[in-house]
Amino acid sequence: MSHEHASAAPQTPTGYRIPTTWTGDVLELDPRGTPGFEGGKAAGVDHLVAADAELDDLQERLYAQHHGNGSGRSVLLVVQGMDTSGKGGIMRHVVGAVDPQGVHITAFKAPTDEEKSHDFLWRIAPHAPAPGMIGVFDRSHYEDVLIHKVHGWADDTEIDRRYDAINAFEQELTDRGTVVVKVLLHISHAEQGKRLLERLERPDKHWKFNPADIDERQLWPAYMDATTAALSATSTEAAPWTVVPADRKWYARIAVQERLLEALRSIDPQWPAADFDVDEQLARLRATMTED
Amino acid sequence: MSHEHASAAPQTPTGYRIPTTWTGDVLELDPRGTPGFEGGKAAGVDHLVAADAELDDLQERLYAQHHGNGSGRSVLLVVQGMDTSGKGGIMRHVVGAVDPQGVHITAFKAPTDEEKSHDFLWRIAPHAPAPGMIGVFDRSHYEDVLIHKVHGWADDTEIDRRYDAINAFEQELTDRGTVVVKVLLHISHAEQGKRLLERLERPDKHWKFNPADIDERQLWPAYMDATTAALSATSTEAAPWTVVPADRKWYARIAVQERLLEALRSIDPQWPAADFDVDEQLARLRATMTED
Repeated sequence: MSHEHASAAPQTPTGYRIPTTWTGDVLELDPRGTPGFEGGKAAGVDHLVAADAELDDLQERLYAQHHGNGSGRSVLLVVQGMDTSGKGGIMRHVVGAVDPQGVHITAFKAPTDEEKSHDFLWRIAPHAPAPGMIGVFDRSHYEDVLIHKVHGWADDTEIDRRYDAINAFEQELTDRGTVVVKVLLHISHAEQGKRLLERLERPDKHWKFNPADIDERQLWPAYMDATTAALSATSTEAAPWTVVPADRKWYARIAVQERLLEALRSIDPQWPAADFDVDEQLARLRATMTED
Repeated sequence: MSHEHASAAPQTPTGYRIPTTWTGDVLELDPRGTPGFEGGKAAGVDHLVAADAELDDLQERLYAQHHGNGSGRSVLLVVQGMDTSGKGGIMRHVVGAVDPQGVHITAFKAPTDEEKSHDFLWRIAPHAPAPGMIGVFDRSHYEDVLIHKVHGWADDTEIDRRYDAINAFEQELTDRGTVVVKVLLHISHAEQGKRLLERLERPDKHWKFNPADIDERQLWPAYMDATTAALSATSTEAAPWTVVPADRKWYARIAVQERLLEALRSIDPQWPAADFDVDEQLARLRATMTED
């Protein structure tokens, strides 16, 4: 351990779990908090690396037990957050530590004309993870109840219909064996300002900046309201939300990693038994090895 | 450096480059060779990690410059090899070190009935990488000139037609801006025997074993002949082959990494210039930061 005062007790960086009965406000949750974790950045970075071995083992078992089957278990990690909240860092440092053969990331951009001509879940559903896989959504169907609500592209009745459609969709995924993990990367307005400033001040970051990012930033209070409303309406038993404080990138990463670990532990995947006679195959193999 | 006798000169693990005029035999190439690299496993592992920084930088530049455009540069890494030759380890340790947002892996399994009803490239072409991306094929259209030739599912005339179709397809990809990198992971018959034995002896590896793997192993000489023929027919200026000795997994990984690096260096991607007025956006941003 590089952090000499790190606690000896196991730590569980939980983020803020949103109960199904939640009546709070996302602005009451501290974007600089580190719930469930004592220690600073160095301890956090150690924690991320140390937990990779368990993540590896669980992911390989999930793949071994369920892939290629018509049905079976899977995990869907939905990652939402304002611009600069660190979604890319989650993909890179948490998801990127997992064997890429067992992970499928889908980044949802602004919908195409064809996608817009269908109901909002039409473009989402085909990207649900196959059995044995970890699917990751970088943005998701939640854009349709956040940006659409903020800009008034959908009225309240339509937004309510979408909440119901989302809950039904996620229940269906759960019923088919998918553990749905939803994380909101929660940054402060001040921290977003600093991160956008860095993008503007560094020529190698200009490509990540779009003038429209500032237009959206100017709507911050409306985004927070829409976020609170969406969390209240869609944190269900089947698919609860976790608000992950994200002003400290290192904390956000270990909290998302922890949720992924919990999802995999709840599946408790096992190495599948051989569907062949091991001794018979050993004998066949050894017969081919005499000439070497 | 953990390997105290490692050479101070930069090392270039090249694998065996197959010239367009090649008239050799794959069996003449040593599966335990380490062409272009002096040093053992420890030095090789160090080399893999040390080269990740350049790979990272080049990949991010490629993505920054070309993604989201209607046209632009990309890389396609085609990975072929017999069972147990280490394709999974390449995905894990070479491709897996790259930001997963910039990589798309496609694993080609036995074709479905629908896929079989089309010409062999029908299922391949849609997985060519988009601009800015690194596409990776875990097995590929080369199965259609290897397993099909070995089993006689296609006659010589048809195999020749497929070589031509492959060369035309890869030329077209190159013309559209894709650098096509093709690596054959070359293991010995003896090494495959050891690796299959490990899969049979360890219950946590049984899921990777299929009795048909031994059927294919019994056809080893025919696979080597088909490989030699495919390398001769399809190592073109546009898309040359590299035979990567793969009995030493650490060497195979640095040799594939080197080919990926060369492909990216040849593109020489640059940070794109801002398509907005930086000072104007800085002023707009700063106006939003006064309240924090």
